[in-house]
Amino acid sequence: MHKNSLLSMKDLSKDDIVHILSDALLFDSCYADWQLPDAGSLVANLFFEASTRTHYSFESAELQLGLKAVDIAIAGSSVGKGESLYDTLKTLEMHGYKALVIRHSRERYWDELENLKIPVLNAGDGAGDHPTQCLLDLLTMQQEFGTLAGLNVVICGDILHSRVASSNKTALELLGSKVTFAGPKEWSREGYEWVDFDEAIPEADVVMMLRIQKERGAALDGVGDDSYLEAYGLTKDRYARMKKTAIVMHPAPVNRGIEIDTDLVEAERSRIFKQMYNGVLVRKAVIKRAFGYGPFEGENR
Amino acid sequence: MHKNSLLSMKDLSKDDIVHILSDALLFDSCYADWQLPDAGSLVANLFFEASTRTHYSFESAELQLGLKAVDIAIAGSSVGKGESLYDTLKTLEMHGYKALVIRHSRERYWDELENLKIPVLNAGDGAGDHPTQCLLDLLTMQQEFGTLAGLNVVICGDILHSRVASSNKTALELLGSKVTFAGPKEWSREGYEWVDFDEAIPEADVVMMLRIQKERGAALDGVGDDSYLEAYGLTKDRYARMKKTAIVMHPAPVNRGIEIDTDLVEAERSRIFKQMYNGVLVRKAVIKRAFGYGPFEGENR
Amino acid sequence: MHKNSLLSMKDLSKDDIVHILSDALLFDSCYADWQLPDAGSLVANLFFEASTRTHYSFESAELQLGLKAVDIAIAGSSVGKGESLYDTLKTLEMHGYKALVIRHSRERYWDELENLKIPVLNAGDGAGDHPTQCLLDLLTMQQEFGTLAGLNVVICGDILHSRVASSNKTALELLGSKVTFAGPKEWSREGYEWVDFDEAIPEADVVMMLRIQKERGAALDGVGDDSYLEAYGLTKDRYARMKKTAIVMHPAPVNRGIEIDTDLVEAERSRIFKQMYNGVLVRKAVIKRAFGYGPFEGENR
Repeated sequence: MHKNSLLSMKDLSKDDIVHILSDALLFDSCYADWQLPDAGSLVANLFFEASTRTHYSFESAELQLGLKAVDIAIAGSSVGKGESLYDTLKTLEMHGYKALVIRHSRERYWDELENLKIPVLNAGDGAGDHPTQCLLDLLTMQQEFGTLAGLNVVICGDILHSRVASSNKTALELLGSKVTFAGPKEWSREGYEWVDFDEAIPEADVVMMLRIQKERGAALDGVGDDSYLEAYGLTKDRYARMKKTAIVMHPAPVNRGIEIDTDLVEAERSRIFKQMYNGVLVRKAVIKRAFGYGPFEGENR
Repeated sequence: MHKNSLLSMKDLSKDDIVHILSDALLFDSCYADWQLPDAGSLVANLFFEASTRTHYSFESAELQLGLKAVDIAIAGSSVGKGESLYDTLKTLEMHGYKALVIRHSRERYWDELENLKIPVLNAGDGAGDHPTQCLLDLLTMQQEFGTLAGLNVVICGDILHSRVASSNKTALELLGSKVTFAGPKEWSREGYEWVDFDEAIPEADVVMMLRIQKERGAALDGVGDDSYLEAYGLTKDRYARMKKTAIVMHPAPVNRGIEIDTDLVEAERSRIFKQMYNGVLVRKAVIKRAFGYGPFEGENR
Repeated sequence: MHKNSLLSMKDLSKDDIVHILSDALLFDSCYADWQLPDAGSLVANLFFEASTRTHYSFESAELQLGLKAVDIAIAGSSVGKGESLYDTLKTLEMHGYKALVIRHSRERYWDELENLKIPVLNAGDGAGDHPTQCLLDLLTMQQEFGTLAGLNVVICGDILHSRVASSNKTALELLGSKVTFAGPKEWSREGYEWVDFDEAIPEADVVMMLRIQKERGAALDGVGDDSYLEAYGLTKDRYARMKKTAIVMHPAPVNRGIEIDTDLVEAERSRIFKQMYNGVLVRKAVIKRAFGYGPFEGENR
């Protein structure tokens, strides 16, 4: 596997993360129009699972960097003829594509891709990892608070089925934040510190709500949409009890009225749409890294 | 909603229409290679309903103007995860897309999009409106006759299910044409002047045939494909009884042998494929307008 | 039909083939960055049948040549509204697309396209032809052996359902190679010289394995995947009995473990992935030809 691939947050050192976030911030200011010296190179996007935000955020990042982006139609591809994932991807390498962005339902799909010679950017592998989502979450917190060290982050909801929860836990702890989890006990995970949501809210700097992943089989007996909001969602009452400096996050798509009161999606302390904006910035940073370019400010910042 | 959006013909003044048609004509001559100063900006195309002509005509116009065009895969998008249309579109705004081209089955789908900050170009909303189709029809008539004032236009066929009929009625009457309607009485609409097709033909400057929209449930008892052509379609006999200067139009796709004799689709007086050519010209004009650029020739023409 | 179309290998003279292969080779060396003077022109890709390799190889070639490539969504197009193929394609011509790449399940789908004014590049028509696949096969052999004259080529497998077999037979015989066929007798064709695979292997310069096209109804009574490999596939034993200079080819996608032992796909004498690389080179050559440009080295080579 190409060394500039980005597969899992676990592969990134603290320095790697710092460099990526630093580049992402610079893409929002003096490097907004920066293009890859490899402008005109081809990148292929392969989404074996549905996606809007990750897919078109990556595509926006690719195009802004001057790359040519090609969406591979999965339904109409040789995958349907029984071809192995490796053979499909090796084919694209031979066709001249210089990097691949992949979302796949199989966790660690890259384990069979050793012989691939071009970088892979993981856009989500089953309930495994989703590193660019994690990076954009980190960026959003860093923009807000200047640092991640010492932050109190509460993540609430469908922890069990979420690739966001595990990526964020790994990275936030590495960077010195305190992370706790809340939501229905049925969706807890071993090794994750569980708290009462209502007790945690007044102390939190970041309240991150997760989406109920109905398409992964998430369901709770006796909990309809309304009762979920009351029990575990972000209601106006809970929002009012947050610190005045605290922010609301959600990886989206949002089930409005279930995880969060619909009026709060664009509330003053919500950073939900800001997260999407930041998604393009971090994806520009990891694509730049995939093409072999070091951080803008070198090692001396 | 962004003020440079184009949602319905009803939103355009007579001057607006004149400016768009004027720009479209200039795109066919001295401004053929004109590119947006915003060349390189991203546009997203969202077709929630099937389309060839409108979709790839818009895409051609976007690319000719130097924009980068991204087709959003609806089937593989978060729409399938229950996301609201507003949230999907706001996401694309946050990702850096500068304009949206949208076809949707819901009439006036834009009523929920107030908070969107980028222009929307309506590529058809259910049985509601289809402004760029109307504009290309107007352009085709203006090219042929120099003016729309005083033209006698007969529109025949499935008036009831057609978003073309209502857009054209509004605009043609505003611009001084006389518009009448023909076809099966079951498909008439209140407030639409109904005429006998055979009586209307010798007087018409424009004979516009509409497609039977089977996918919207259009069907007539006891009327097979052949008998429809005889009763309400453009047969060779009817074509022969048209004025020598009159033209045939059809928004296409054509059901050959139903609305029109297959040999007439490319007959001398048919402008059916010319309409498609003109579609790119008017779409270039409305995209230019969406990006905030006034008419090429200013107010002084 | 436009004269620069490429529909069938039967339409190409020996000289035409030589010119295309020569251009393809030059695209791999001194002309690697060559762009069409028509750079920025629009090409539309229409794949009515599933494809990865051909589709995204064409798209890579188009983009490398500086064209703008648009993938027409078949499922979401007016084809689903009953439009004729001619009307769909003529529409794209009127929209300003300058060439069309088409794969279709109907053999000789181009017979109804006489009035089209832009070139069509055939990317496969049912069990008919697949000229660019044939050209990339020829290129791969020519790279290896310097010439095609006198080569001994054995093609083994599902000859009956393969558009590759017939294109290659025509072209290789024209260029002076000897071509024989092997595999299950049920899949033989009249006029194709049949040989025993095991006897043919030690004499062959090229061993070309074909894919079992399950999606075209290929199936053999009493032959499972394992027994097919033993009876007609390329096993390690057969590979060991090949000439030391001989090469293995396969148009892919490969059914690993059926037509070929999975370990041989990237074996030293395998050119399977090289074929995919070459696919982009020949497609660049035929696109260049479609836009009216003669061979790089003129008639004087």
